[in-house]
Amino acid sequence: MSFDRLERKLGEIGELLLDKLAEILPLPEGEKEQSLFEAMRYSTLSRGKRLRPFLTVETAQLFGVSLDSSLQTAAAVELIHSYSLIHDDLPAIDNDDFRRGLPSCHKKFGEAVAILAGDSLLTYAFQVLSDDVTHRDPAVRIELVSQVAKAAGFSGMVGGQVIDILAQNSDLDFNEIVRLQRMKTGALFAISCEAGAILGKAPRNLRNCLRAYANNLGLAFQITDDLLDVEGTREETGKAVRKDANAAKATLVSCLGIEPARAHAKMLATQAIEHLAVFGDQASMLRELAEYVISRTK
Amino acid sequence: MSFDRLERKLGEIGELLLDKLAEILPLPEGEKEQSLFEAMRYSTLSRGKRLRPFLTVETAQLFGVSLDSSLQTAAAVELIHSYSLIHDDLPAIDNDDFRRGLPSCHKKFGEAVAILAGDSLLTYAFQVLSDDVTHRDPAVRIELVSQVAKAAGFSGMVGGQVIDILAQNSDLDFNEIVRLQRMKTGALFAISCEAGAILGKAPRNLRNCLRAYANNLGLAFQITDDLLDVEGTREETGKAVRKDANAAKATLVSCLGIEPARAHAKMLATQAIEHLAVFGDQASMLRELAEYVISRTK
Repeated sequence: MSFDRLERKLGEIGELLLDKLAEILPLPEGEKEQSLFEAMRYSTLSRGKRLRPFLTVETAQLFGVSLDSSLQTAAAVELIHSYSLIHDDLPAIDNDDFRRGLPSCHKKFGEAVAILAGDSLLTYAFQVLSDDVTHRDPAVRIELVSQVAKAAGFSGMVGGQVIDILAQNSDLDFNEIVRLQRMKTGALFAISCEAGAILGKAPRNLRNCLRAYANNLGLAFQITDDLLDVEGTREETGKAVRKDANAAKATLVSCLGIEPARAHAKMLATQAIEHLAVFGDQASMLRELAEYVISRTK
Repeated sequence: MSFDRLERKLGEIGELLLDKLAEILPLPEGEKEQSLFEAMRYSTLSRGKRLRPFLTVETAQLFGVSLDSSLQTAAAVELIHSYSLIHDDLPAIDNDDFRRGLPSCHKKFGEAVAILAGDSLLTYAFQVLSDDVTHRDPAVRIELVSQVAKAAGFSGMVGGQVIDILAQNSDLDFNEIVRLQRMKTGALFAISCEAGAILGKAPRNLRNCLRAYANNLGLAFQITDDLLDVEGTREETGKAVRKDANAAKATLVSCLGIEPARAHAKMLATQAIEHLAVFGDQASMLRELAEYVISRTK
């Protein structure tokens, strides 16, 4: 299967997102705190996969939402994703010296500035959501703040990260790892999809379809990530590999075995696609993405 | 001058705030991530001075805002204050083993959980603000999100903290230290005051009076803090003292000298009080607070 059309679209949205992030992030201008701004930009303005922004832009267009609006929302979620990578890489957490093939934020700017750059990105995400560029209706903006906060906080990403850290020395069973991953990576995927529906004031049932799609997609993505950690090389993935095995960390792959995990990811991608039926042809990119996520090699 | 009435009122609002925080913070219930909830509660549910909540409740009552509404808003700001203390205490930042006479969060729960508990409190603050308990009008809630984010982020608290860290090895002049303190502690004081006006949909000129009061109050508070660091003992203040001198850190006190700094704090308190003229007798507690802040010994 060829993903040319999807990859072109991912690239396009990635470029637009990068422009938006470059526009909204403060520029260092010789102030005493300029290393804070440098660290924020360093960790955010790189060419990542930008799957989450893609999800927001693509789901938003299902409801005729303007690109201005969906990109601004996507940028806010991406600020949160960036902050989480900075904090995860810290010595006290995952202790990663590299990120996307470059020194991680604390290796480049020191731990103190890295911690505070993460704090600042997280805080700024909510400021960006509150701006009326996001949506002219304050009720929509506050719903986004509420849902993004839930996805990013103790019941989502941060909660999942805590479980993940503690799991390094404990055995989680399959269901517990699924819960962990739904929280750690799934919640931000889910809000990235649901954001389009929130911006479009979509009815609840359509919001739920996109959330269900995202839940399956997020888990499929995570299993593929774990498979790459086992099978990939640092040159391919741009980051340290074998981290999970070195940390004796329970993952869906260590739990199921390599081939059953690959089959499970495929089943999740199929389920994800089924949740899009109601959107017809308009959701073709989102369908392709589900196939793509389990085929990626980095 | 006796502060009995003020201290009683501070105590009352402190108790109400503690109840509110205990109610909204998630309880650990045997989940894998329960140490996250324990750390969040540990660092938030202590008996601090609670000046910021007092400011929000007192300014809100100037405009007839309900206590439910102002306490919820105050709780959100207090979550942010708590997160900032956790992150500030980390080894990479201020490296403080004690906070309010107890082991700091990372000494008690480890660095990883402390970092993530801080992240979680910050995120949760915005979720709390987005709740309709805060105010039934979404436009008011989104304005609070916007202003709180500005006060807490790179143009406020976090920006000030970065300058403060870098200043440990550089000489800041008086104006630079004033800017630092306005950002680091002043911004959260200012939004705590302005929040009452936002909740009350007060006209811009009254919002500005409260902001000006807060700016003077915040700086007076900080100078007193620096004086206590020079003159206090650990028994009195409940935390390590002589930190600034040990770190060769520039402060308003090191810049002005002890007695001129005390005189400056007094002048700022007087100015703060002048900004309250428009509110008449209703602002008497806020006036007393300005006197109180420069008289405190812990």
